[in-house]
Amino acid sequence: MRVDAVGNIFARRVGTDGSAAPVMTGSHLDTQPLGGRFDGILGVLSGLEIVRTLNDAGIQHERPIDVVCWTDEEGSRFGAGCVGSNAFIGKLSVVDTLAMADADGNSIGDELQRIGYAGPETVGGFEIDSFFEIHIEQGPILERQGLQIGAVEGAQASTGYMVTVTGEEGHAGTLPMVLRKDTMHGAARMIDAVDNTALAFDPYPVITVGHLRVRPNSRNTIPGQVIFSIDSRHPDNDTLAASGQAMKSACEAIAKERGLGLDIEQTSHRDAVSFDPSCVQAVRDASDALGFPCMNIFSGAGHDAINLSHVCPSGMIFIPCEDGITHNELENARSEDLTAGTDVLMHALLHRAGRV
Amino acid sequence: MRVDAVGNIFARRVGTDGSAAPVMTGSHLDTQPLGGRFDGILGVLSGLEIVRTLNDAGIQHERPIDVVCWTDEEGSRFGAGCVGSNAFIGKLSVVDTLAMADADGNSIGDELQRIGYAGPETVGGFEIDSFFEIHIEQGPILERQGLQIGAVEGAQASTGYMVTVTGEEGHAGTLPMVLRKDTMHGAARMIDAVDNTALAFDPYPVITVGHLRVRPNSRNTIPGQVIFSIDSRHPDNDTLAASGQAMKSACEAIAKERGLGLDIEQTSHRDAVSFDPSCVQAVRDASDALGFPCMNIFSGAGHDAINLSHVCPSGMIFIPCEDGITHNELENARSEDLTAGTDVLMHALLHRAGRV
Repeated sequence: MRVDAVGNIFARRVGTDGSAAPVMTGSHLDTQPLGGRFDGILGVLSGLEIVRTLNDAGIQHERPIDVVCWTDEEGSRFGAGCVGSNAFIGKLSVVDTLAMADADGNSIGDELQRIGYAGPETVGGFEIDSFFEIHIEQGPILERQGLQIGAVEGAQASTGYMVTVTGEEGHAGTLPMVLRKDTMHGAARMIDAVDNTALAFDPYPVITVGHLRVRPNSRNTIPGQVIFSIDSRHPDNDTLAASGQAMKSACEAIAKERGLGLDIEQTSHRDAVSFDPSCVQAVRDASDALGFPCMNIFSGAGHDAINLSHVCPSGMIFIPCEDGITHNELENARSEDLTAGTDVLMHALLHRAGRV
Repeated sequence: MRVDAVGNIFARRVGTDGSAAPVMTGSHLDTQPLGGRFDGILGVLSGLEIVRTLNDAGIQHERPIDVVCWTDEEGSRFGAGCVGSNAFIGKLSVVDTLAMADADGNSIGDELQRIGYAGPETVGGFEIDSFFEIHIEQGPILERQGLQIGAVEGAQASTGYMVTVTGEEGHAGTLPMVLRKDTMHGAARMIDAVDNTALAFDPYPVITVGHLRVRPNSRNTIPGQVIFSIDSRHPDNDTLAASGQAMKSACEAIAKERGLGLDIEQTSHRDAVSFDPSCVQAVRDASDALGFPCMNIFSGAGHDAINLSHVCPSGMIFIPCEDGITHNELENARSEDLTAGTDVLMHALLHRAGRV
């Protein structure tokens, strides 16, 4: 077991070749504030179950098999997701990662110290043969097709923004409407405009304003500041950029019209990604060998495997989830699908690791 | 000194007639999350200063003079304002008052116990001769007129609502836009519609959405619930009711169109109020006698004195505040205006209490 300086946790099953780069699998244990039991957690527990199975069966392999738990994939608290894998691949420096702070000003560095997961290991910097991640689909496609395995070909592009609207506080009863600089009304019009602007593109991006906070947030005071997030995703990089620009322009026009201050910060961006064809094929081959019907599929969500694909051949396995529901306590998956996916993952790992 | 069961604090300067009902003055010490140093606080400290002045000068009066600090006038934390004076006049039962809870579920009763202000005295139930409250105007009128004293004639009607919009949580990247029940977008359109609906009335009410909270409030999750407040005020009771009904209808239409659940709860209501003419005149007479220019004025804000006007003759004194700014850390008032107002208040109190 090793824990690195940003809290990523690695467990290794050694191979017969002590000098070979590991095959790695894993996902994340953090979840959404009202999320379910499968998003991320499946990918870590499957890795542990595979190691136990290999131990029970006495199976050996040339390359080491590493099971990883990445820090803060969801980004619910510190404002941007895939924190641990971002730091691991060097997309974000360790210093900047540890300085990321939540709405109360608590930093990731301090919070890792507090919970005992500021580990001694260097972040990243070692060779990986390949990375595989198993995950619930988080959409309705596999369930509707009646299939147990999705061999993930790639993932859509994604950009996150944090929008800060600044006006002036004032008394709810005494300040005439025409003299107000009301950020709540301004933000409401911006959120409506953001959706309408995005929907004008064909095909349109998916747009979510999931986080919003109001200052001072008292029913008697005209809000002097509203901050909200925009999450936008599209399979095509250029369309995503164009729709982002259109959303910004719409917000700027509303701020100007109402005399409000506006700051739009891009907090995250990920280009569209294609997974390594040999990894996609390894998933397909394992499914075929085990007799599970399989289809190629595209990921609507972000995943740590997308980050890993920039430093090593990577692939993902999707299994169906009930009604496509996710980021919700109702999130559910069938036991037989969890078993099938874990079995496929084990065979893909053994293929890359070289069963002895 | 006496503290009652809802935390109202009373200090008495005895009069020469031990059986006479007291003349009362006071306001509140609580403030807005980002409020200033004058709203409410002036009305309590002026009462204390007057008692000290009467002590220093050895002045006696027939009726007792009570200085009161009312609990939670602003309503920033527990959802509705004028809590202490509502309970005092019997508009809200003591049981219901103590059960009011904040967003974290902490009740007023428990919090009063915690801070040591769950007092032994019965709430209300004693006769009061009259009530006077001094307060900053919280608007720009006196300052623009160059006057130091406003004799408050009455206050506008006010209604508060809490709106709960319910949809379904879902993943920001995977749930198609057409399948979403996105409460954030729905609430944004409602807030815009509430403002536009209100502005269609002539003269229009003042409308504020000051408080909003999102569940689960994570940038990656489509919000399954948004709750927001509406505060609306108008000098005319009927116009306020009609605009409230129009706002409700606008929200209902948006909820229906988007398949969202909607609950609109009226959390507070106060009819328009006229203060007792003899109290208004006592303020005018004191101003004239002291040589401070004075005008009659109407209150845009709610005050404890409006509650007291239902159980005894009541009046208010306004003094100017800088640029009319209030509910804001920039709130300011000139020393000479604070002094003038306190002097007028002392003379009005002595007039009612009967200087010996």
